[in-house]
Amino acid sequence: MSEALRRVGVTRVRADDRAPALDLAAVEEPLEIRLHGEPFAVIMRTPGADVELAAGFLLAEQIVRHADDLETIARCPDADDAAGGNVLDVRLDGRWTGDLPALLASRRQVVTGSSCGLCGRRTIASLRAEAPAPAAGWTIDPARVSALPVQLRRAQAVFEETGGLHAAGLFRPDGTLEAIAEDVGRHNAVDKVIGRMLLAGRLPLAAHLLVVSGRASFEIVQKALLAGIPLVAAVSAPSSLAIDLAAETGITLLGFVRGDTFNIYAHPGRIARVRTL
Amino acid sequence: MSEALRRVGVTRVRADDRAPALDLAAVEEPLEIRLHGEPFAVIMRTPGADVELAAGFLLAEQIVRHADDLETIARCPDADDAAGGNVLDVRLDGRWTGDLPALLASRRQVVTGSSCGLCGRRTIASLRAEAPAPAAGWTIDPARVSALPVQLRRAQAVFEETGGLHAAGLFRPDGTLEAIAEDVGRHNAVDKVIGRMLLAGRLPLAAHLLVVSGRASFEIVQKALLAGIPLVAAVSAPSSLAIDLAAETGITLLGFVRGDTFNIYAHPGRIARVRTL
Repeated sequence: MSEALRRVGVTRVRADDRAPALDLAAVEEPLEIRLHGEPFAVIMRTPGADVELAAGFLLAEQIVRHADDLETIARCPDADDAAGGNVLDVRLDGRWTGDLPALLASRRQVVTGSSCGLCGRRTIASLRAEAPAPAAGWTIDPARVSALPVQLRRAQAVFEETGGLHAAGLFRPDGTLEAIAEDVGRHNAVDKVIGRMLLAGRLPLAAHLLVVSGRASFEIVQKALLAGIPLVAAVSAPSSLAIDLAAETGITLLGFVRGDTFNIYAHPGRIARVRTL
Repeated sequence: MSEALRRVGVTRVRADDRAPALDLAAVEEPLEIRLHGEPFAVIMRTPGADVELAAGFLLAEQIVRHADDLETIARCPDADDAAGGNVLDVRLDGRWTGDLPALLASRRQVVTGSSCGLCGRRTIASLRAEAPAPAAGWTIDPARVSALPVQLRRAQAVFEETGGLHAAGLFRPDGTLEAIAEDVGRHNAVDKVIGRMLLAGRLPLAAHLLVVSGRASFEIVQKALLAGIPLVAAVSAPSSLAIDLAAETGITLLGFVRGDTFNIYAHPGRIARVRTL
């Protein structure tokens, strides 16, 4: 199997049925780019074509312009084993006309999560230390889960008109929509709804679930964790690192919530049929 | 109309027909967040709920944890007019227990484009000064444009299996696919294909066009500009700033390339029917 994919066990839910299944998740891992041995940027990426990614990234950052500006791009030999090859050291050519010390002085982490370390494992471990696992005694009915994307879509003012905006919604387990936001950036939409509740003094959001119109990446689950949200539901696919983070921090992660089906990628206990007596 | 939307004039192409039309584009603009007057981060976002966005962003950055950590979030009074209200100054509460000087010393731009200034206009102006407008004498037939997403999809090894990966492809105007990459991050997929060509010493890519499987944001067009690519085609919607940048730098921008239709958002001259004599 390609290094871009990882086989993951899921619980597939369709209406009243649930069954174990295997799914393929896109791999997401941090890549650290160093310039002459100095940390320059960390990018969340899918492994594969790392050298090309580093070259293209440095072009977009306007650090190099031609192949001649690059001397070597090599796996970092002194990176510790846990990083698993996720560190590249770039050496610029001696004829490169830029100012390397000034460049490094202005260096920045490009990944949004500032706590993002060299590898998935370390990142997740450090996050768990800083945020308690969201606590929630509630469960939600599968039929209510299936209704969430429809509710989000209905509440979305802009999407139908442009196709260009992502949405994030905060719901209660009874299906009540409490906050919604739209943005060209997936992460921004999540920050907007969580920020609204933060400003209202309502964190942690233990009695809420977060629904996103697109994919669930590491950062989306990280934002939920920091807000104390115990369940994240995505209309599209979760990344491998999103699944890992959810699994390790007690967050229920749902993906491909479409029609009357969805996948549970972590902590299925919060999905339970409500029986009428 | 919502501040999240902008009406834009497009050329709508369907098979052999083309007609002027109005479309709605999602607005994308940079928001600068300052902490106690010092620049902290620039986020590309859709205007609306800016205060909530700033609060949620600072939570995700693990700078604040509660509403009490925030004293005020206010539009920056000394920001110049051109910034158009895209600057927020955040004051942390006196009881906030963090180390502000250390925080600011480690401050970073979160937006990928390092040249991104306070407002769209300034950003675009500064970019144009640094990269020449892509030059290309070629045209491409609408039927060939319509085939591009299908070709990209066919060449995509992973997407069909996971639904979780974005793709970017570099094509020649005759429809030949020269490079393709996949990634959980849209921008990474573009960096990978452009990086491959950079490493091969093949920049500027004046005889190529870039096809992306998702949306076209400012950064995607910016990357094309820096690589000298004169045409960008997106399967989904372009943002307002992507359209502005393409229009001002001579790049042909296509969106919603689906079936036998697409929209031309900038520089329609490169789309021309090839007549067989």
